[in-house]
Amino acid sequence: MISQFYKEMTGKESVIRKFFDYSRERAAKLGPDSVYNFSIGNPSVPVPQKFNDAMTELLQNEDPVALHGYSPTLGQPTTKACIARSLNERFGMNYEAKHIFPTSGAAGALSHALRCVAGAGDTVLTFAPYFPEYVPYVEGTGAKLRVVPADTTSFQINFEKFTEMMSPSVSAVLINSPNNPSGIVYTTETIKKLASILLEKQQEYGHEIFLITDEPYRELVFSGVDSPFVSKLYDNSICCYSFSKSLSLPGERIGYMAVNPKAKDADYLVPMAGQISRFTGHNCPSSIMQLAIERVINDTSDLSIYEKNAELLYNALSAQGYEIVKPMGTFYMFPKSPIPDANEFCWKAARELGLIIVPGDSFDCPGYFRISYCVATEQIERAIPLFEKLLAMV
Amino acid sequence: MISQFYKEMTGKESVIRKFFDYSRERAAKLGPDSVYNFSIGNPSVPVPQKFNDAMTELLQNEDPVALHGYSPTLGQPTTKACIARSLNERFGMNYEAKHIFPTSGAAGALSHALRCVAGAGDTVLTFAPYFPEYVPYVEGTGAKLRVVPADTTSFQINFEKFTEMMSPSVSAVLINSPNNPSGIVYTTETIKKLASILLEKQQEYGHEIFLITDEPYRELVFSGVDSPFVSKLYDNSICCYSFSKSLSLPGERIGYMAVNPKAKDADYLVPMAGQISRFTGHNCPSSIMQLAIERVINDTSDLSIYEKNAELLYNALSAQGYEIVKPMGTFYMFPKSPIPDANEFCWKAARELGLIIVPGDSFDCPGYFRISYCVATEQIERAIPLFEKLLAMV
Repeated sequence: MISQFYKEMTGKESVIRKFFDYSRERAAKLGPDSVYNFSIGNPSVPVPQKFNDAMTELLQNEDPVALHGYSPTLGQPTTKACIARSLNERFGMNYEAKHIFPTSGAAGALSHALRCVAGAGDTVLTFAPYFPEYVPYVEGTGAKLRVVPADTTSFQINFEKFTEMMSPSVSAVLINSPNNPSGIVYTTETIKKLASILLEKQQEYGHEIFLITDEPYRELVFSGVDSPFVSKLYDNSICCYSFSKSLSLPGERIGYMAVNPKAKDADYLVPMAGQISRFTGHNCPSSIMQLAIERVINDTSDLSIYEKNAELLYNALSAQGYEIVKPMGTFYMFPKSPIPDANEFCWKAARELGLIIVPGDSFDCPGYFRISYCVATEQIERAIPLFEKLLAMV
Repeated sequence: MISQFYKEMTGKESVIRKFFDYSRERAAKLGPDSVYNFSIGNPSVPVPQKFNDAMTELLQNEDPVALHGYSPTLGQPTTKACIARSLNERFGMNYEAKHIFPTSGAAGALSHALRCVAGAGDTVLTFAPYFPEYVPYVEGTGAKLRVVPADTTSFQINFEKFTEMMSPSVSAVLINSPNNPSGIVYTTETIKKLASILLEKQQEYGHEIFLITDEPYRELVFSGVDSPFVSKLYDNSICCYSFSKSLSLPGERIGYMAVNPKAKDADYLVPMAGQISRFTGHNCPSSIMQLAIERVINDTSDLSIYEKNAELLYNALSAQGYEIVKPMGTFYMFPKSPIPDANEFCWKAARELGLIIVPGDSFDCPGYFRISYCVATEQIERAIPLFEKLLAMV
């Protein structure tokens, strides 16, 4: 008897995937120049050479039995200490190695953090627009995900709706800033207001409400943008990070969960994550990857192209008449669809012009579309006139 | 509110861990020569140089954006095809790439395979002695693990008890051969008998019963031993493999799930595993690790030391009067404790002689103890007289 639950899920491709697949078919049929793929959030710049050099050096100089041996259940001690030190220096925190749990990317961090603080009967709140994988991440814990509708004027938090949706069953709130798909960064004002509501509700309900922060885009913030370190502003928080975007190595599955040292039961949460791994079969990330990350802990890829692309695309599309909240980071922007049905709009863009963009419906925010501009600037330059053409067609 | 379920688990160290920790304390106090650590199943021989060379070559010659980029959800196509080809050539199977799902070690493979075929209300049967992590692996699916008592005369399957314990709720049977902790390999006769019972029970219950084979020790089989490829003998089977022991890289977390092409719904199971990953946050293994494995798919570390150690230790301890079923593979053996309480026996060995061995209670087989002989042969030579001394002390 195979699981009907998972069987019924197979074959139901995500909308993003459908657009991606269409782009491949079109490229095969009409040639690669017929497609302008803005559908996927894959870093387009290389990992720093220093990282590959660190890997090579480890392979050449370390004892292979130790190098490739089991990492301790709660992660390589030197890696944990190195991550803690870097966060403390950069953000004025007081992490110790014991608060850091290396994980297989942000997906691994979120799946552990959510299981630490949510289970059957609990509610986790998040904010539209949001990364669609939050649904299985949260459902995997037994809890329910409920989504606070977007504030589409700024893509900051819709506090009115949020306050209405708070209830005693809320054990965790999950935020993603810098945000996929909006490209917006929550301001210090937004985070302070969120923290004050959570503090008040903790008091009212008589239990902790954990703030889980999904931060894979933390290093992708544009110049001059206010980007607070959320855990500095709210104690019951767990930061979930991935090196995928900052170091351009999403396939290597390396990230971490950092438990706020001031959180209630802070010293329990990493050991709990170690227990959770036993149930999900999700052990530590690769040993060599943990050790290599130490050597580039404060480095990033050259991320300047994302800001350059953002500027170019935002200015051109705004001038053409698209309504866009100006992105503050990431490699996404999230314009309003000129017709109410963004799905129809995106299919028209794909089929008639080869512009591959994805509808906001996937992010629980219909009527908008996402452009992923982690592409060569030249692709953007060639695509700009097509966006104008598209606007004229609808 | 943090999870009480996981919180209560923290601090409850495994018995194996307690012995391991004692060995470190003792070494710190009395010097490293005062300890003979036989508690841990960590490979003691290096990865083949060819693997490190393959990694270096990939780092130096591949486009870094592609090399470190996301692997497709169901794994690197070339890696999948390479694993299938190797299994087909070696075992006369007909795997295609679509039947292979690369995972983070055997833990990852088992957690996916079990979720494919077991859930709430189901029973999974396994056989003592067994790897204690099977409990959380199975409970993580919502199913219950029930354990068939050991046949301690041979550590093959206790078929009488097995047949008694079969019931319509059994959706999967989980076996581990070559076996941790017994060192025994199930013979062709054992597997054929198991298969015929499963076929009969499938008929009787009107549903499939999947055989999940946990095979991290597949390449660690001693000369002349009959070691059938289980999936050749039973169609509804999923093979769960890890390269950890054969290539001595347990920290790198690389293995796979191979779905028997003749299994019911064979073509669904890998796509289902892709869905399961979304709920556990357990994505593909590291991209570079998948690609490097291709280059050493039919290689192993020099595993001969394990057989040499087995021979030496088995002959010496048997001559001393220990009752041992002769190991046929792995780097474990599982002698009978000379006193009924193996826990007491192992603590005496540790405290009075520095011999670190672990009681069979951890493997649901009281009255026995496990010796892990993945150590330098010289350690075994020095320890042999101490085993004799120990026998005289009890």
